[in-house]
Amino acid sequence: MFQNLVHAKIFQSYIEQSQFPTAPSNLYDPIRYILSLSGKRIRPMLVSMGTALFDEKQVEASLPASTAIEYFHNFSLIHDDIMDKAPLRRGKQTVHQKWNDSVAILSGDALLVKAYEELAKCPADKMVPLLQLFNRTALAVCEGQQYDMDFEIRPDVSEDEYIEMIRLKTSVLLGCALQMGAIIGGAGKDEQELLYDFGVNLGIAFQLQDDLLDVYGDPNTFGKQVGGDILSNKKTILFIQLQKKLQGNDLQLFEHLLACDVQQEPDKVAKMQTLYAKYDIQNIGLALKEEFTALAYDRLRAISVEESKKDQLFSLADALMHRQQ
Amino acid sequence: MFQNLVHAKIFQSYIEQSQFPTAPSNLYDPIRYILSLSGKRIRPMLVSMGTALFDEKQVEASLPASTAIEYFHNFSLIHDDIMDKAPLRRGKQTVHQKWNDSVAILSGDALLVKAYEELAKCPADKMVPLLQLFNRTALAVCEGQQYDMDFEIRPDVSEDEYIEMIRLKTSVLLGCALQMGAIIGGAGKDEQELLYDFGVNLGIAFQLQDDLLDVYGDPNTFGKQVGGDILSNKKTILFIQLQKKLQGNDLQLFEHLLACDVQQEPDKVAKMQTLYAKYDIQNIGLALKEEFTALAYDRLRAISVEESKKDQLFSLADALMHRQQ
Repeated sequence: MFQNLVHAKIFQSYIEQSQFPTAPSNLYDPIRYILSLSGKRIRPMLVSMGTALFDEKQVEASLPASTAIEYFHNFSLIHDDIMDKAPLRRGKQTVHQKWNDSVAILSGDALLVKAYEELAKCPADKMVPLLQLFNRTALAVCEGQQYDMDFEIRPDVSEDEYIEMIRLKTSVLLGCALQMGAIIGGAGKDEQELLYDFGVNLGIAFQLQDDLLDVYGDPNTFGKQVGGDILSNKKTILFIQLQKKLQGNDLQLFEHLLACDVQQEPDKVAKMQTLYAKYDIQNIGLALKEEFTALAYDRLRAISVEESKKDQLFSLADALMHRQQ
Repeated sequence: MFQNLVHAKIFQSYIEQSQFPTAPSNLYDPIRYILSLSGKRIRPMLVSMGTALFDEKQVEASLPASTAIEYFHNFSLIHDDIMDKAPLRRGKQTVHQKWNDSVAILSGDALLVKAYEELAKCPADKMVPLLQLFNRTALAVCEGQQYDMDFEIRPDVSEDEYIEMIRLKTSVLLGCALQMGAIIGGAGKDEQELLYDFGVNLGIAFQLQDDLLDVYGDPNTFGKQVGGDILSNKKTILFIQLQKKLQGNDLQLFEHLLACDVQQEPDKVAKMQTLYAKYDIQNIGLALKEEFTALAYDRLRAISVEESKKDQLFSLADALMHRQQ
């Protein structure tokens, strides 16, 4: 959906030049493979846009940082898919499924190191703050993934804990991408932080949107399987809200559905959707999403650069928040 | 065996101050655990010694680099143990055994990021070369581990391939540790490379020593199980040499022993040791080890600093090459 944007095009031509050795093939083939399943490249675009917001001339200098962020994102997908035992990613076999767990662990590790190799190509005078930000973010992403796994076996996850988990697992990387751009573009500390907060809040809204699409999305346009979270009993924001509100027999039905897989209860998704409708969970989810979207937009508005320079970021945010896929 | 060395002491007190967050506990407890199984801390000592060789006053400034190397080493142990399905490490449960594979993958990832966090504390004017060297080495270590796994299912590994594999998997990290020290100590490019080559050749000799101890070590002093490589049919340098020389019935016996586990053939280790003795493999192994040791010492001798400053490195190398554990 963003392929027409100029930043996406510049990045695409840069990353296509990246070369990986041919041997050992079990180390580098999986890296070529995951990168070829090209996602939307949102994160590298955020680096470029963050740079352009402050200094359009530095966009080329920001391409290694964009690549570092994209490599890191793909590293985390490879390792998360092992932990989640996911068979598919972007409609194709996951790395551990196509090869095996050992290959996925090691090629993920190598891709993380490749991310740092790109970082080492960033402007030397910005190296330390870029490295510090990237490290802080990478650790936060690991923490988020651990909380996500911990939550699978905890019955009592609160809304705040869930928001904190998605902030760590997915949102800080968007903030980091933008702030790295701002650093390379020469922004001051305050402007950097505003842009970071724009990204983090946008990321939270984006994940809440994902939760909503899983329950209410159109199966014809949603990229993933509608009801996937329901089938895996994932404690999304909607799940947590519903769990809090259920009463009487509905609570029993809910517990029953959680205890059943799709063989035991072929209508699990439909029945759960009926419960979501009855308790008006969609509106709670939408309101929360709007809250974080508004926070994000506030931060972007507060940045002291010409308003017209913010157009691209507002457009991207709008597109992300109104996507149906 | 090296605990009395001053560099080991300085490093120990530095690393003991390092703090990890308490939550999420499944992310940080495994890191505290693996670091508490303190090995010989050879790699951080090499950083300090590499620094001291050129500028004693910079040793304190090299402690973050030492820590980065030690964290990286422990990260690789956590992940290698998953891939090798190893139950024990330094006589204690491995991380994936004590927790599970997912915890081991993710805490390993976090420890790798922590290594880069330490790198970011190194002198800023040396940051780019340090980061480049560290990245190049980390990728080489991943390649070595992949070759090691590939070799398990390949019947025809050559001596050269084996040496290249151990160079990548274990030796370049010793060279890297020393060169990082040299960089921080202000050495020129030529001296840096001599010290790197000293470390790499020493590392190869060290691994060949390990192969020898597995077959010929004294079970009372060897830290690991004597015959462990034999039981797992590991293609060590001795295995490769023996395989090349076997004739007639001995070849059949060898193939038979490879096809048996210890239940099927309780005397597998003893019988294989008899074959090693018959073909005089120990002397071939010792000669090869001496060759790489001599190469290492040549490089150290060639470095243009006062000879007395090299004493510590020669002593450490001697101790490593004559260890029985």
